[in-house]
Amino acid sequence: MADDDIFKQFREHSVAEFFKKNRQMLGFSGKVRSLTMIVHEFVTNSLDACEEAGILPEIYVQVDELDAQAKDHYRVTVKDNGPGIPKSHLGKALGQMLAGTKFHRYLQQRGQQGIGASACVMFSYLTTGQPTKAISACKGKKITANITIDFKSNKPVVEDPVEEPAAEGESGLTVVSEFKDVRYERSNYGVYEYLRRTALANPHCSITLVEPGDQMSAFPRSVQVNPRRPFEIKPHPLGIGTHDLLEFAKHSRDYRKLSAFLQNTFSRLSAGRVDELRALVPGVDFDKNPQELDWNEAELLVNAFRQVKWIAPATDSLVPIDKEQIEISFTNIFRPEVLVVTERAPKVYRGGIPFMVEVGLAYGGGLVSAEKKGEVMRFANRVPLLFDSGGCAITETIKSMDWKRYDIRNFEDEPVAVLVNLVSVHVPYTSAGKQAISNEEDVMDEIKFALMEASRGVQKYLSGRRRAHDIANKKKLVSRYVQQLSSDLATLSGEKSDSIAKKLTQIIEEKYAQEDEEEAGGVAEPAEKAEEGEDE
Amino acid sequence: MADDDIFKQFREHSVAEFFKKNRQMLGFSGKVRSLTMIVHEFVTNSLDACEEAGILPEIYVQVDELDAQAKDHYRVTVKDNGPGIPKSHLGKALGQMLAGTKFHRYLQQRGQQGIGASACVMFSYLTTGQPTKAISACKGKKITANITIDFKSNKPVVEDPVEEPAAEGESGLTVVSEFKDVRYERSNYGVYEYLRRTALANPHCSITLVEPGDQMSAFPRSVQVNPRRPFEIKPHPLGIGTHDLLEFAKHSRDYRKLSAFLQNTFSRLSAGRVDELRALVPGVDFDKNPQELDWNEAELLVNAFRQVKWIAPATDSLVPIDKEQIEISFTNIFRPEVLVVTERAPKVYRGGIPFMVEVGLAYGGGLVSAEKKGEVMRFANRVPLLFDSGGCAITETIKSMDWKRYDIRNFEDEPVAVLVNLVSVHVPYTSAGKQAISNEEDVMDEIKFALMEASRGVQKYLSGRRRAHDIANKKKLVSRYVQQLSSDLATLSGEKSDSIAKKLTQIIEEKYAQEDEEEAGGVAEPAEKAEEGEDE
Repeated sequence: MADDDIFKQFREHSVAEFFKKNRQMLGFSGKVRSLTMIVHEFVTNSLDACEEAGILPEIYVQVDELDAQAKDHYRVTVKDNGPGIPKSHLGKALGQMLAGTKFHRYLQQRGQQGIGASACVMFSYLTTGQPTKAISACKGKKITANITIDFKSNKPVVEDPVEEPAAEGESGLTVVSEFKDVRYERSNYGVYEYLRRTALANPHCSITLVEPGDQMSAFPRSVQVNPRRPFEIKPHPLGIGTHDLLEFAKHSRDYRKLSAFLQNTFSRLSAGRVDELRALVPGVDFDKNPQELDWNEAELLVNAFRQVKWIAPATDSLVPIDKEQIEISFTNIFRPEVLVVTERAPKVYRGGIPFMVEVGLAYGGGLVSAEKKGEVMRFANRVPLLFDSGGCAITETIKSMDWKRYDIRNFEDEPVAVLVNLVSVHVPYTSAGKQAISNEEDVMDEIKFALMEASRGVQKYLSGRRRAHDIANKKKLVSRYVQQLSSDLATLSGEKSDSIAKKLTQIIEEKYAQEDEEEAGGVAEPAEKAEEGEDE
Repeated sequence: MADDDIFKQFREHSVAEFFKKNRQMLGFSGKVRSLTMIVHEFVTNSLDACEEAGILPEIYVQVDELDAQAKDHYRVTVKDNGPGIPKSHLGKALGQMLAGTKFHRYLQQRGQQGIGASACVMFSYLTTGQPTKAISACKGKKITANITIDFKSNKPVVEDPVEEPAAEGESGLTVVSEFKDVRYERSNYGVYEYLRRTALANPHCSITLVEPGDQMSAFPRSVQVNPRRPFEIKPHPLGIGTHDLLEFAKHSRDYRKLSAFLQNTFSRLSAGRVDELRALVPGVDFDKNPQELDWNEAELLVNAFRQVKWIAPATDSLVPIDKEQIEISFTNIFRPEVLVVTERAPKVYRGGIPFMVEVGLAYGGGLVSAEKKGEVMRFANRVPLLFDSGGCAITETIKSMDWKRYDIRNFEDEPVAVLVNLVSVHVPYTSAGKQAISNEEDVMDEIKFALMEASRGVQKYLSGRRRAHDIANKKKLVSRYVQQLSSDLATLSGEKSDSIAKKLTQIIEEKYAQEDEEEAGGVAEPAEKAEEGEDE
């Protein structure tokens, strides 16, 4: 083909066309996985909407098999009691990719892309030719409409909208979508398991699932209030890139001076810190209009940011599952012999993005009887991650751990279960399907430190248990001779055999109690010494 | 926050903003990886451009460390001898995402998204504030321009364009970009290794690399002609979705009858096949205008497609690396004791997309001395995949293989190297970073069958070797007695000891030659029986 012909083939494509052709990037690959992804996207949106509006979430999920003859054809219904979506935004919220309320905010949320729900609407239309029916009860009105996407333009197509008054107190969004090329299955990758794990990490939610064949399962709430709301924060100066700083400065219209702009745009950037920055970059005029900041000045500032000692991002901007909750859930599921939950302090990665890691590590007990070995439960912002474990930072970090150091010989072959939840205002997913976390160094470090902390706790228990076992064995061995020895001594000394036996037993008890204490001290110390970062 | 406030926060975002915030989805995570990704994207485009224009590719890559003090600051230059890009398209080709000549074509190419090069331009600008300098010699003109992306609109910004006459015979594209937050390293994940593997799979390319510090490496071409061109094909009816069929029908203006439209739009759909389809779906009017096709009719047709026995997609639309070439490359690199290369016939996956798999499996020899164990080299359309191996269909399939069955006890612990190349008109990558192949069932099946085929070959060799070894051992054992026995027999019989020994040796040789043959037959049979699909 001659080269001038090639450029006649030059085209521009919409993001909807891109994901239509690359639906696997949204997680739509494999029938079982696709169905779970659909429920995941809708439920995620429902939970975010309820919590943002301060409503205790009640989620209803129903999966119907349509026409058992036409295989792999289902209808999925997801209904919430959230605030609903106003008519003006209903189409865009469900029928346009890269549109929504979440993408640009520094706030811990489950959704963050503005793609998920529209992707489901797209997948439904691609496989069945049917629009998704949306029923939104919002501020006294009830809107019903059929929604699809126009692929060429990535714009919503809203058909047959009906508006009527909502019933008294009625509010929430219901979506009803048909799908082909999906399959319902009660496996580790199915909808049931997904909702079970969602309930585990969201004890304030009430979830009802009606499976094909009308079997109903309830995951009732175990906590009667919503968790503390994460709040929207300003970006943290640590890790802000030069381009980010320039973008903020360019769009800042409220401040006439760079110093005021800095203090009001970034978190932890006080007047005192501005003075420090002034000293670090004397070449930059802090009284200049921020809109006139150029690349060089911005770069000098960003480099200076890295030399200042900052307070970590606001702890309460992030809301983990919570130590106590993980303990309750893990105990309920696994009834382990030992359980250690650790919660790290928030840190910052690329772009001033705060994040934190919590880890639960369980060993033995019910895990042995259930034959569970090396079980990993991954979460991000309380959302269970069921797929793509291979490329995920959590899995990679678990693999890279030197478990032997913690008396866990082979992670995959021992009765151990680990839960890792990454909480962040922006989770660095590897793809739009949001099932695996990218291998960001800072994030992996924190996961590792949290795992190490928890492992040390489990190790302490395990070595304590082993020690107790050793001592008991020794005592047993020594005690065997007590009877014989005391009767021999009784014959020699004339004292009563019983009283000699009693004394001997006492001596043995005292000796091993002391040994136990000494060894316990001896074990605790190296464990304490094993501080962050020494693990490879 | 009240719910009416939430929707004030509703925004639409461009795909450039999306990837700016989620640059890890493009593969830009980690300093070393980011630099390799940049070279990968530019080189990939260069190779595609050269081959499409029938030019033997000559690629020049230079990486300079700028200002050793300012850490992690590099300039990357990639120059090719391709046809160049005309002025009219230069901006969009390098400064707009989802734009290009490749996305919509059914043609085996390295690039397929229209994102890669623009992503590098974006990454350069984000980290250095600098535009990318493009020099395009195209049809007698030489255009030089500085290019960036406007994030809000996803449109190119072209600055300082200069047009001058090109030198006689001069043609090709040169891009010069600066980057921070990247690092050059000679590791398994670095630029050098990437280019080495590119050369391995593209023996018709001449590649020159100048590393920081001006060290020059040449990967000269070993084949003096371009490989046969893959050609653009029509989609295959197998696996076409209802929505695809409707889209094709809606945009078809050349055919007034459904029958003509079908025959001319899809490959392998002859008049005879149309007759078969007519018989299968009597309810569909094959004389109707294709633009009037509705969802139900399209669905009936698509279901009928699956009942017809089709000829596989045109073999020559896909171009593998080639058996002979893999043999030469593998022998050069590893000098293995045994090497088996298999090439599967093309198959089709979702959406009528043809693909094929080739596998090279090497064992022993140089792999032992080089201490290489369980080495995996992944390729897609001849492009080396260095990252995200965890989630890749190739890695997963290798892991799922029952290697023991092929006398390879533990894949990761034996001197074995495997190359897998997936060739397709559309590779189902897991993310826009294009480093891992999605777990599509049909694709994984073919990878597995190819691996099994190659494994059987290696097993045959290994069991032959073991048999030879066993027989040699037995012979050695028996032969020990020949000398003693023949001298004893000589004493008894009076015959010469030498001649008795000779006869005995002859008997032993004959016996073991026969045993060898019998066992060889006995081993070959179960190996043959181990046909496709029985492996889990």
